[in-house]
Amino acid sequence: MPRPQADTDATREMLLETAEQIIKERGAISFTVSELAAACGMSQSNIYRFFPSKEALWEAMAERWFRELIEIMEDVVNSGDPPRDKMIAFFGRRVDLKRARYAADPALFESYMELGSEHFEVVRGYVDLGDHYLAIIVADAMEDGYFPGLDIDRTVSLINIMMQPFCNPELMMQMLDTLSEEKLEQVVDTILAGLSARPPADETNRPPLSIAH
Amino acid sequence: MPRPQADTDATREMLLETAEQIIKERGAISFTVSELAAACGMSQSNIYRFFPSKEALWEAMAERWFRELIEIMEDVVNSGDPPRDKMIAFFGRRVDLKRARYAADPALFESYMELGSEHFEVVRGYVDLGDHYLAIIVADAMEDGYFPGLDIDRTVSLINIMMQPFCNPELMMQMLDTLSEEKLEQVVDTILAGLSARPPADETNRPPLSIAH
Repeated sequence: MPRPQADTDATREMLLETAEQIIKERGAISFTVSELAAACGMSQSNIYRFFPSKEALWEAMAERWFRELIEIMEDVVNSGDPPRDKMIAFFGRRVDLKRARYAADPALFESYMELGSEHFEVVRGYVDLGDHYLAIIVADAMEDGYFPGLDIDRTVSLINIMMQPFCNPELMMQMLDTLSEEKLEQVVDTILAGLSARPPADETNRPPLSIAH
Repeated sequence: MPRPQADTDATREMLLETAEQIIKERGAISFTVSELAAACGMSQSNIYRFFPSKEALWEAMAERWFRELIEIMEDVVNSGDPPRDKMIAFFGRRVDLKRARYAADPALFESYMELGSEHFEVVRGYVDLGDHYLAIIVADAMEDGYFPGLDIDRTVSLINIMMQPFCNPELMMQMLDTLSEEKLEQVVDTILAGLSARPPADETNRPPLSIAH
């Protein structure tokens, strides 16, 4: 007889909460499914009935971390706000959430960051999803006349470079004291105005640099 | 009889090279003066004749790492180039140097980064020195009419936020594939044009964010 779905969900949730507690207390680097099994008093094969592979467990933990961040991005993208407001909310609301999570439990926050470094193949899809939502905002802004002469991918890449402290969680926590709502607005305004301006003619004799791609 | 200065310098250099080798092979986190003493076959008290404290040893290692980076910054600041060229060279030439160091020896590069995290009080002065040089370039740019209505400290802070991938070495190595000379120029042009533009009037009803400082 198949287990009722509600029981399965409750067990999965219990396993994820236990996994969270383990990485919080012992760090994420050495965390394994067998450690989770031991902590729950379950056999490893029983755990695999709820998460069919260790990758499925990492994915469920990532899904738990990113769920609310994705809701924010969808909410912002689907709002009828002007591009400037969307840009500010897109980064600012996620900074707020990450700041709140860090304040609530710094050790857990750092363990999730460590887990993400260990299993970056799982995080990669969420990074790409963030770029996807940002690309929608950039396309909206282009319809309003921003970023003339630039394509969407290039614009997204340049915005990501200039916005790192507002989107890279490790960097954000390092720079938290220097980041403010006012500076976020100034950076967004700089991007919107500066990436919409014609670059000055390059009439210099600076020696070439080798940063080449 | 005092030791000849040349002998002292040679021994200090040998100790620094050995220290470099140790952090490269075993990481910087557990590195101690007694480990250095053991590796050189010297007593700890003998090492203290060359570096009077462990702090003096960390400082000498930091000086070794930053020497050439400071030369670049001084060279750029003292050049007669226009502000745009100075900004590009200020960041670009240091990216080139760090990229070359990373390519030459990734393990040593990462060990120095780890050493810097472990002893950030030593690195702090060099970060401030970088801000000092950037402030001189910003002041030059202001004389040319850039950044109207902004003060130097605020401008330096905003530039540091937008330039993180071009100055934070850990982030730089993570993003190396996406950074290019052309993007550096586009970011500098965005900063110069965007921070010199009047921000648009804020006529929105966006909910307030809590990023507040």
